[in-house]
Amino acid sequence: MNAVILSIGDELTSGQTVDTNSAYLSRELASRGIATLAHCTIGDDRALIAQAIRSACELANLVIVTGGLGPTEDDLTRQALADTLGVELRLDEKCLAVLEEFFRRRGRTMVEANRIQAMIPTGVEVLENKVGTAAGMAARVGTAQVYLVPGVPFEMKWLFENVIAARLPEQQGLITHRVIHTFGAGESDVGAKIADLMKRGANPTVGTTVAAGLVSIRVVTRAADAAGVNALSQPVIDELKSRLGHIVLGEEDQTMALVLGELLRRAGQTVATAESCTGGMIGQMITAVPGSSDYYMGGVIAYDNRIKQELLGVPQELLAQHGAVSEPVALAMAAGCLKHFNSDWAISITGIAGPGGGTDEKPVGLVYVALAGKTVAPIAVRTLFPAQRDMIRLRSSLAAMDLLRTRLLSLRS
Amino acid sequence: MNAVILSIGDELTSGQTVDTNSAYLSRELASRGIATLAHCTIGDDRALIAQAIRSACELANLVIVTGGLGPTEDDLTRQALADTLGVELRLDEKCLAVLEEFFRRRGRTMVEANRIQAMIPTGVEVLENKVGTAAGMAARVGTAQVYLVPGVPFEMKWLFENVIAARLPEQQGLITHRVIHTFGAGESDVGAKIADLMKRGANPTVGTTVAAGLVSIRVVTRAADAAGVNALSQPVIDELKSRLGHIVLGEEDQTMALVLGELLRRAGQTVATAESCTGGMIGQMITAVPGSSDYYMGGVIAYDNRIKQELLGVPQELLAQHGAVSEPVALAMAAGCLKHFNSDWAISITGIAGPGGGTDEKPVGLVYVALAGKTVAPIAVRTLFPAQRDMIRLRSSLAAMDLLRTRLLSLRS
Repeated sequence: MNAVILSIGDELTSGQTVDTNSAYLSRELASRGIATLAHCTIGDDRALIAQAIRSACELANLVIVTGGLGPTEDDLTRQALADTLGVELRLDEKCLAVLEEFFRRRGRTMVEANRIQAMIPTGVEVLENKVGTAAGMAARVGTAQVYLVPGVPFEMKWLFENVIAARLPEQQGLITHRVIHTFGAGESDVGAKIADLMKRGANPTVGTTVAAGLVSIRVVTRAADAAGVNALSQPVIDELKSRLGHIVLGEEDQTMALVLGELLRRAGQTVATAESCTGGMIGQMITAVPGSSDYYMGGVIAYDNRIKQELLGVPQELLAQHGAVSEPVALAMAAGCLKHFNSDWAISITGIAGPGGGTDEKPVGLVYVALAGKTVAPIAVRTLFPAQRDMIRLRSSLAAMDLLRTRLLSLRS
Repeated sequence: MNAVILSIGDELTSGQTVDTNSAYLSRELASRGIATLAHCTIGDDRALIAQAIRSACELANLVIVTGGLGPTEDDLTRQALADTLGVELRLDEKCLAVLEEFFRRRGRTMVEANRIQAMIPTGVEVLENKVGTAAGMAARVGTAQVYLVPGVPFEMKWLFENVIAARLPEQQGLITHRVIHTFGAGESDVGAKIADLMKRGANPTVGTTVAAGLVSIRVVTRAADAAGVNALSQPVIDELKSRLGHIVLGEEDQTMALVLGELLRRAGQTVATAESCTGGMIGQMITAVPGSSDYYMGGVIAYDNRIKQELLGVPQELLAQHGAVSEPVALAMAAGCLKHFNSDWAISITGIAGPGGGTDEKPVGLVYVALAGKTVAPIAVRTLFPAQRDMIRLRSSLAAMDLLRTRLLSLRS
């Protein structure tokens, strides 16, 4: 089985928005042994969309169309599918009822414009969307199975995962992608340690990428079935992990916050945060993980120096003598946070994220992260990040969390 | 003149890499008055690439192909172009000399594999690439002009900017995109207010998209020059802003945090935050804006209920009687935050981000945001967000900031 993915929208063909849906769907299909032959992006043009659906259905036996199912005038995918099938749109009463209920439950009144979202080409099956107003659709066009899903990524993903995935055929051969994330070494250092495993044309192939402050290693394996994939990939994964040691953070969807959370949960311990230049980013990352209330107490965003004194108990003299961006202040922030939150651990950050505020002595990118614990001596680490505001903040947040992650790992072993 | 952009590579169709080249080229073409009809991504398959080039040349009179010009076995774009033209590849001596010189200057020896990069379809023009080993190419296919460029983004950009751009026809006109962001109304509500401006085929065309929790309105204008664009687009922009009123957040790169920050700066006022389910997201968004220390004091991340009492002074009885996710607690968090931070304003959030923790009475997605100010009565708003954890947190954060944004707007007027 092979697939073509169509993405609809002027915001895509004009370059205003980058299409990420097609990559997501291709990865999901590949993991089920379905190869994607092509992605096609078409603007909000009814005739072109209809033509693209027809062409895609001649090329592949699975066609997924994203976008153009909204309630406005420029949403034309349902009309184009009707044109392709040579049928009319009809009001689907059940779909309308679901839509009205969707609004009612949220205490909103459905406006007339949304009725179009219950207009379905005759003979086309409605796929209920429980997270938005644009229903998905399923149809046969010639020998191809066609699915229509909304373009909003999280609605698209919901429909794929909850409705479409179960309808795909049993998988034939597998291409699996496994990813190992590392933190604490540069890409070239990681590459040097694993260069002999990165030969072109090998199976699995091993490659590195840098994204979101992490150096990640992709292991792509081709085999007939899951057992075959495992036999080929597991020795390589094991070798990679063994060579890279404690800089290995986790795999796949494991984020720094998730891994740190699991370590805290297993230890039955809690953490609190004291952030200056990151302004809540660590807290936000930790609480992005469902269930983080089990181990995260909360934090203080001490953006203003007065708050560092009043809410974290950092002595005024320390601030005056060393400045807010200094090792003593980072340590005092962590110690004060530990005390105020009565948690097992506290991590703190103070730094200069720029673009302004740097000096020769304390340049933009200078960050101190510190860790305090109930039973161990506090530590602080000084880093100079060679990047811009967003990256300095992200990497500082990761560095602070990594201080606790590696400490928890060393306490376990 | 209109264009189709083809991207070649298994890493794209497999979803391992997101294609950003097409969006870049579309924006560049649009700024020169050339509309992009479609993007198409095809894997490393010679026959499919040849077929795609043929189809693209039937649809548009400008076709740009990115990728598949490397030195390895899976780089097949040059062969596919030869197939499309019905010609053979021949060794281009000048191209080979340039290639050898490229390696020599970098102190490297050219390996045999790179010779393929000097193999050019007969009759096709070579476009020298001064920043990499993959030469570009130019050819006529039927009535279309075809350009081949490497897939590496910076090489692709170099060839476009330094070679192809100058060969595009004199600008027959401009296509400009302006974007207005709104918050506080659903896409269908926005659409209903501006439906008559969204007529298909109008100039400017007006369309809506939903991204990152905002409903955005794109205004795409075609005209001979900047003055013409302005004459056509400004009345529409003014009309849109007038109809949409206070839900208009800003334009282009203006984020909620940026707009809120500007309003605070102009008013000479400060804000502090008290966050529960968003765990620092508001603080993180506010401090993503450089210079935010001028108006942001900091915040408390009161994830644990004990912290709501101890650091924000929320009475224990209130928590016991109404629960942490309630209007009285949201108001008490904002009031306590205002007091502790001694800021002009305080915003608070308490809610159930899920996926666990929901009940019939208080389902996942239930969020209270509140605003307290030194001189005005506090207010709270209850919302039920129909989405998942990430989206609930993002929209809650935006809703809390919007409470202060709209209040500051109304105080100004």
